[in-house]
Amino acid sequence: MAQTEEQPEKHCWVCFATERDDRSAEWVSPCRCKGCTKWIHQSCLQRWLDEKQKGNNGGAVSCPQCGTEYHVVFPKMGPLVYFLQQVDRALSQASPFASVGVVVGTVYWSAVTYGAVTVMQVVGHKKGLYVMERADPLFLLMGLPTIPVVLVLGKMIRWEDYIVRLWQRYSYRRKLLPGNRYLPRVPADGPGSGDHLSVSRTLCGALIFPSIASLVGRLLFRQVSSNLQRTILGGIAFVLMKGVLKVYFKQQQYVMQANRQILNYPERNADRQHEGGDEDMEDSGNE
Amino acid sequence: MAQTEEQPEKHCWVCFATERDDRSAEWVSPCRCKGCTKWIHQSCLQRWLDEKQKGNNGGAVSCPQCGTEYHVVFPKMGPLVYFLQQVDRALSQASPFASVGVVVGTVYWSAVTYGAVTVMQVVGHKKGLYVMERADPLFLLMGLPTIPVVLVLGKMIRWEDYIVRLWQRYSYRRKLLPGNRYLPRVPADGPGSGDHLSVSRTLCGALIFPSIASLVGRLLFRQVSSNLQRTILGGIAFVLMKGVLKVYFKQQQYVMQANRQILNYPERNADRQHEGGDEDMEDSGNE
Repeated sequence: MAQTEEQPEKHCWVCFATERDDRSAEWVSPCRCKGCTKWIHQSCLQRWLDEKQKGNNGGAVSCPQCGTEYHVVFPKMGPLVYFLQQVDRALSQASPFASVGVVVGTVYWSAVTYGAVTVMQVVGHKKGLYVMERADPLFLLMGLPTIPVVLVLGKMIRWEDYIVRLWQRYSYRRKLLPGNRYLPRVPADGPGSGDHLSVSRTLCGALIFPSIASLVGRLLFRQVSSNLQRTILGGIAFVLMKGVLKVYFKQQQYVMQANRQILNYPERNADRQHEGGDEDMEDSGNE
Repeated sequence: MAQTEEQPEKHCWVCFATERDDRSAEWVSPCRCKGCTKWIHQSCLQRWLDEKQKGNNGGAVSCPQCGTEYHVVFPKMGPLVYFLQQVDRALSQASPFASVGVVVGTVYWSAVTYGAVTVMQVVGHKKGLYVMERADPLFLLMGLPTIPVVLVLGKMIRWEDYIVRLWQRYSYRRKLLPGNRYLPRVPADGPGSGDHLSVSRTLCGALIFPSIASLVGRLLFRQVSSNLQRTILGGIAFVLMKGVLKVYFKQQQYVMQANRQILNYPERNADRQHEGGDEDMEDSGNE
């Protein structure tokens, strides 16, 4: 044989068998490697490839020594298999987008439903149905889902914080006038710790607002006969009441922060227990 | 003063000012530290605490030297502030759960709607509405959302894979009989690469199935007058057709994998270009 003249003997770098061990085995030299890693049994390389690919049969695999990509040839299949392969690939690529569509559709449909329920809640059940049945369907499909969106956006306007800031600026100036030296400390981060916008709280607050407005309207404005007017009045009353309470609360939190005092460590007890024990104190403190 | 007898002079470990620099400043000894880090101005410690807490005013802060937690006292506020604080805390704790409820409600409501649309699609628009209007509302609210759930669960039963595996076992046994030595390789991970369950594909396939069943029913079983029967027949026909194609495709993929061949690296070209360049080859391969 020609190969045996070039090289002393083929041996497989996976199973270490030589040509003499199994004369019928199929040999392959799949990469640019020379010497002892040049030859490998076809069956050993297949097993090694299976191990490397771990079921992901599409991926390219290279020789770990020389980096040459193995040239793998598959038997030609018919046009039906090719067609099915293309369909399978197309479905796999399209399904994530379709899933996003399902999620968006779910959210959209819930927004439409929420909008319709809100309309019925605000103008009354029968009148709401009547209004929506007479309206343009396209207008409803566009308009109803904007109701929760507008509610959430409206909830994100934090006008109470603005008023708190205005108040603090004003009260600070007034305190400057009498000329007292000891100004209260101005807390670092403005009004209190509840300043950061909580997503879940904003969402829930916005979605429950029409129900609260309807409830407050029924409690406070019984004499108003129109459902719409009563709910709007209830909503305004609730927003104002909540705003006043929130401004008051934030201002009080601010005052609390501004007037905090850090107390002395109880000196006498400590001195009696550890007289002259400076080093002990520092040791125990560093633990 | 008693302090000046014990220690030579107070000085603040933040601003390094001594008692003589500002006789009116308030001093505090907030921790177990002795010596030069014992005393600090109240105002300096407040500034340092603000810096440490960075707006998170609730957190405890300790002395960086001895580890003693500072004892911070806030002025007593009225019962209204306490009440508002409790309400604020309760709302903050409840809002994540409420948000989860909103998400669950959204999914549930979409499932109800999907179920209703599917009923109307399967038994016909008018008859579907008639059936649902006469049914118990509680039964509808429980039954309709189970429709998409059952569809998805049904889609997760991969009976085609089972048939492919049966087929492969059968054909493997038959190939053993003739006594030929060269069995085709058995791919490592069973039938093909599309074996892993894709969430998005399962979901979309399950949700679109009633539409496909209705379409196939209308195309293949025009003579059937009942909407329900036609759609069921269409669904069965589609599942069977798809199953046969899928089994065929997976089997062909398996055969393709089993009969792959790894080719020799084009030996002669490489030899001519780099005669005796074993080391060069390995170097370039390792890049």
